[in-house]
Amino acid sequence: MILCDIGNTSVDLFIDAKRSKSRADNFDPATLGGDDVYYVCVNAAINERIRDLANWHDLRELIDWDKYYPTMGIDRIMVCEAVEEGVIVDAGSAITVDVMRGGVYQGGFISLGLRPAQEAYARLSNALDVSFNFEVDLAKMAKNTPDAVAVGFLAPLVEKIERLGKPMYVTGGDGVLLSRFFSEAVVDEDLIFKGMKKLIEKGVKC
Amino acid sequence: MILCDIGNTSVDLFIDAKRSKSRADNFDPATLGGDDVYYVCVNAAINERIRDLANWHDLRELIDWDKYYPTMGIDRIMVCEAVEEGVIVDAGSAITVDVMRGGVYQGGFISLGLRPAQEAYARLSNALDVSFNFEVDLAKMAKNTPDAVAVGFLAPLVEKIERLGKPMYVTGGDGVLLSRFFSEAVVDEDLIFKGMKKLIEKGVKC
Repeated sequence: MILCDIGNTSVDLFIDAKRSKSRADNFDPATLGGDDVYYVCVNAAINERIRDLANWHDLRELIDWDKYYPTMGIDRIMVCEAVEEGVIVDAGSAITVDVMRGGVYQGGFISLGLRPAQEAYARLSNALDVSFNFEVDLAKMAKNTPDAVAVGFLAPLVEKIERLGKPMYVTGGDGVLLSRFFSEAVVDEDLIFKGMKKLIEKGVKC
Repeated sequence: MILCDIGNTSVDLFIDAKRSKSRADNFDPATLGGDDVYYVCVNAAINERIRDLANWHDLRELIDWDKYYPTMGIDRIMVCEAVEEGVIVDAGSAITVDVMRGGVYQGGFISLGLRPAQEAYARLSNALDVSFNFEVDLAKMAKNTPDAVAVGFLAPLVEKIERLGKPMYVTGGDGVLLSRFFSEAVVDEDLIFKGMKKLIEKGVKC
């Protein structure tokens, strides 16, 4: 069984508990023949090419959409499916924050990712074109520009997430970087694949 | 006495307790002859033309820079000068948040302004190219995309500001819009001019 997460720029595979990543524009789904492939896909061009492949199974079809909402990102739903109880932070180009209690989706919110946020500050003025200082003390008001920008973006977000309760799971490309600000957080880079696997194991609408 | 706040795109004048705004690229400082003009300016081109005008006085020279920090925006310092005690939120292209206690600057932070934040979400994906829902209940986790984006940007920021204490002063172009989320806030669109006036009245380094 192969798990596959297809984004607009990259394709993430999970085969025999090992991950591998390739560029979406080089990816040919027909090369994964034989074994069953369970996938989520937001890439329209690749989706078109998967359609005729009998061993590819779209996990959208197993989702109980009443639990979530129609425009919710499929990756977000998958990381929620991995967690029965807790707060899930997926830090990529957006930072999505979702809450699950007793297996029931409680809602969430979407913040800008670290890089898009820095780029948005840079667009405002040259003075704000600074890298976030990840060594900053978020509990203090800042007295220089790099700290003022880092505290301005990170402190409200980190404190809001902390107040959502425990346990907390952090995943995504910037998960490790962001997790340093949380007092207790489980960093799990494979959360999306765990969600996909749980969904397949249930085998029916969950 | 004329007060003048010169930005990169607009010039804000305060004459006889009345404000008027003009575009920076049309603005000729020599037209304000005779009366004393006290100004702050971040526009290099206009600054060059002011230099030879004897009735124009740069308020940078009255600031005690030890109280603030060298790269701090001059507008931010002016709104702080207006307030002895409290939290000052200036909601423009950036949202600056500063704390004054007993006339002493405690530090602050810088968030993205409402429009630049919305634009940054829009750049992430078409799905996130939505206007913030300002009717949203920030206390609730969201279950649709416009709310998820509005809660994601506004709830962490608003809650962080609320925790900084009272009294709270809100100013800037989006001040009225943002103030609806605060339980108690004084909206004062003339805060920058009040700060400029206080600085002039002290007449010496403050």
